[in-house]
Amino acid sequence: MQRANIKLTRGVPPVESFPNDQIVQCTKTVMTEYGTEIQQYNASIGFKPLRQWIAGESNTQPEQILIGQGSLQLLDLSAQLLIQPGDQVFVEAPTYDRTITTLRRAGADILGFALEKDGPDPDEMERALKAGSRPKFAYLIPDFQNPSGTVMSAEKREAVVALAEKYNFWIFEDSPYRSLRYSGSELPSLYSLLPERVCQMSSFSKTICPGLRVGYMVVPLELVKALAKMAEDTYINSSYINQAIVFDYIRRGWLENHLAELKQLYSQRLDTMLACLDRHFSNRATWTRPEGGFFIGMQLNPQPSLHLLLENAARADLQLTDGRGFFANGGGENFVRLPFCGLTPEEIRQGIDRLDQVVSGLG
Amino acid sequence: MQRANIKLTRGVPPVESFPNDQIVQCTKTVMTEYGTEIQQYNASIGFKPLRQWIAGESNTQPEQILIGQGSLQLLDLSAQLLIQPGDQVFVEAPTYDRTITTLRRAGADILGFALEKDGPDPDEMERALKAGSRPKFAYLIPDFQNPSGTVMSAEKREAVVALAEKYNFWIFEDSPYRSLRYSGSELPSLYSLLPERVCQMSSFSKTICPGLRVGYMVVPLELVKALAKMAEDTYINSSYINQAIVFDYIRRGWLENHLAELKQLYSQRLDTMLACLDRHFSNRATWTRPEGGFFIGMQLNPQPSLHLLLENAARADLQLTDGRGFFANGGGENFVRLPFCGLTPEEIRQGIDRLDQVVSGLG
Repeated sequence: MQRANIKLTRGVPPVESFPNDQIVQCTKTVMTEYGTEIQQYNASIGFKPLRQWIAGESNTQPEQILIGQGSLQLLDLSAQLLIQPGDQVFVEAPTYDRTITTLRRAGADILGFALEKDGPDPDEMERALKAGSRPKFAYLIPDFQNPSGTVMSAEKREAVVALAEKYNFWIFEDSPYRSLRYSGSELPSLYSLLPERVCQMSSFSKTICPGLRVGYMVVPLELVKALAKMAEDTYINSSYINQAIVFDYIRRGWLENHLAELKQLYSQRLDTMLACLDRHFSNRATWTRPEGGFFIGMQLNPQPSLHLLLENAARADLQLTDGRGFFANGGGENFVRLPFCGLTPEEIRQGIDRLDQVVSGLG
Repeated sequence: MQRANIKLTRGVPPVESFPNDQIVQCTKTVMTEYGTEIQQYNASIGFKPLRQWIAGESNTQPEQILIGQGSLQLLDLSAQLLIQPGDQVFVEAPTYDRTITTLRRAGADILGFALEKDGPDPDEMERALKAGSRPKFAYLIPDFQNPSGTVMSAEKREAVVALAEKYNFWIFEDSPYRSLRYSGSELPSLYSLLPERVCQMSSFSKTICPGLRVGYMVVPLELVKALAKMAEDTYINSSYINQAIVFDYIRRGWLENHLAELKQLYSQRLDTMLACLDRHFSNRATWTRPEGGFFIGMQLNPQPSLHLLLENAARADLQLTDGRGFFANGGGENFVRLPFCGLTPEEIRQGIDRLDQVVSGLG
């Protein structure tokens, strides 16, 4: 008897949340209204009506919004613009694994700061700065962090931007999950605290669908021209057709409705996973209890043999991500990222059940 | 009385050629047929049905087709993959200006070979190779070259790929205009002559519309995995929604029909521009008589004061591109790129008339 593989690996939205028909309707509308413009080559900065909407949300001007093919692409351009080989970059430990790859490729010397339950420790950062660290930027995910699920506290947000101001480095604030809060209260974005030093990245991949490939960055005036030029020199422009579809989807009020539906769907899945973890792991692991986003970060105690954990999980039809990939400077052998949005409650129950058996089998 | 500016600058397709309604219909079809798949994150290599079609056209396998956000983006990834600062790259002189920018950014030492009326001189290339040049690759546009409009002869195609084989360098064959031939016979692509050493780039920007941002590269097996990984690390994947729209557009037979219409439209514009040049410039310039593509390349004799030429043209409501941008190693002061597809016959007549007056005014 063959049973389905359960993928506790990538943090992707569930296909049942995708708005097929609405995308068709938006395409029809924007091809009528903007067809000539959006099918042509265009300026790399992005489709103006969508930039205007994002600027309104971010309390800035449309000239500071750069839209691209997903926010990772924009981070890559930023790294190419700002990083010379050997330049230091601060990140959280753990952090988003693709960012580590991007920064390494640009030649960055990456320094990870251990995540506490409310974000990295600003005092530890300042000790590094006082000892001579001169990062080009800090890459931080303050809201529902990938992979840990933590939220940076208001105090730490203020402390971190104060360091950026004092020691003159940029902050890249990655915020793809910020609008997916299921409980609790929103905290100020780093961007709102120090707009002249913070690039805030986000995208519509988690809130509409990844396939449109529309991400954006709110960029300080000092950087925006150079970044837009870098984008133009790399790919001329990202698809205005897709950007116009996103704009029309928002204009119709569908994003607001869709977010409400997603929050309901995802918070149930989060609750299911937390209940399963409480049932199965209370004596041999600790984990975050996130108020939003896609991920729970779990630490297994005692540390298992990582090799056996991954291998036995695969044998039990359970795919896990190697936790070490989220740590730029080593560690992560006992870290398990648990994405809960892309799985049904039944898959979550089975997945955590299998994980229990696998971890138990390791002794 | 204000008259309209005429832009003899960028080589963009005319907006009246864009297939608005068909894109809406294709979107509807592909969202029904592939909606779940194409809205999700996907493999960077590209939407398989479109890769299968391109592979059929290119007489290769779908695993060797990499689809991206326009072909410039794919060239940029290739440069990042292959070029170390100081590595040499051969190009034509003149060549596509954006490629010069991309290669320079990757740190390439660019060596341009003068274009003759049937392509660059392979003997000159071999002299450089014998003298010790070891290019990582040659970037060539054999069909209706941008900016000159020239076609590389069959003999030179064979000679150039023989050099690539003998001296062990890659060729990047940029072919966006190859399917836009208005007269004469097609010559073998460089890729068809030496598939194991040639990356052939093309896109649907000139044959459907730029706004979909769908380009592709036919890649030798030896490079394809590394390039796809580079793409994934940069932007995860390009939009499968857009790639599926292109696939459906082709499947319906619309690309074939559209190409026939475009050829008729563009060949009339080419004829108009050639007639205007014959009328106005026969004693003080030479120019190509291309059998396809977007551009006529013109050399003014005697060489004008470039500064005055551009300035007086702007005063006469005529925008010209600075010819020097197409030459990697200097020159181009008397080179004028004349794009003929994006202008109506009346705009072409007025544009060449104004150019006549501007050049005459320079004495």
